[in-house]
Amino acid sequence: MTCMYCEPDERLTALMIPITDLPASCVYLFKDQTHEGRAIVAARTHVKELHDFSDADLIAFTRDVARVSGVLERQFGAHKINYAVFGDLAPHLHFHLVPKKPDAPEWGQPFILKRPDARLLDEKGYTVIVEKIRAALKT
Amino acid sequence: MTCMYCEPDERLTALMIPITDLPASCVYLFKDQTHEGRAIVAARTHVKELHDFSDADLIAFTRDVARVSGVLERQFGAHKINYAVFGDLAPHLHFHLVPKKPDAPEWGQPFILKRPDARLLDEKGYTVIVEKIRAALKT
Repeated sequence: MTCMYCEPDERLTALMIPITDLPASCVYLFKDQTHEGRAIVAARTHVKELHDFSDADLIAFTRDVARVSGVLERQFGAHKINYAVFGDLAPHLHFHLVPKKPDAPEWGQPFILKRPDARLLDEKGYTVIVEKIRAALKT
Repeated sequence: MTCMYCEPDERLTALMIPITDLPASCVYLFKDQTHEGRAIVAARTHVKELHDFSDADLIAFTRDVARVSGVLERQFGAHKINYAVFGDLAPHLHFHLVPKKPDAPEWGQPFILKRPDARLLDEKGYTVIVEKIRAALKT
């Protein structure tokens, strides 16, 4: 099976919406918006682990992740960002970035990767959030 | 309450064992060894988010994380490393690094942060793993 991050198809679009490309990554909005602003930062190249990057690519990718986490904190009033790379079964390096708030679900606990009661939005709802993140990443 | 990563006390030693210091971090073995080699890489300075680091510190810290993840993969035969920063309630930036294998628990799922059936070792068992990681980080 092809890698959905290398060759985006309906497996990817079922889960996320493209926001923008950064120097070393592609940024997506995660469709489950239980945590408003929840996003994915996927490496542009197919690497499995952080230590598989060249030093230059590791630095560029990490700067992208930190840039997006800063935007999510500011734009969505997050009290803490959760960051996670799992990918046992889809080993193209990608970070889940999850803005957490004390009055929202899962505060004080790891975020749930796939909630059965995912908070899905309509197209307009997604567009507003995507545009907010995209604009903030441009500044 | 003080930060246990800034001022290590019994809250920290209940959960983890010091392995070594790296340029931008302190490395610990997590006492629950359900996933052999599971470790923590904590920032040396008290920062909350990746974007709170200076660029130089972000680079140094990320290199430390990647160095440890490479060692865990090689020393423990991990098929995938899981990486996570939570810390809603203990916001001193620290990565959980969890070596995953297909025949071990939680393969294909996010690792469980605190398992009720934690796999604790005796002192000798911990020492063997700590020394293995410590030696590999020196090379």
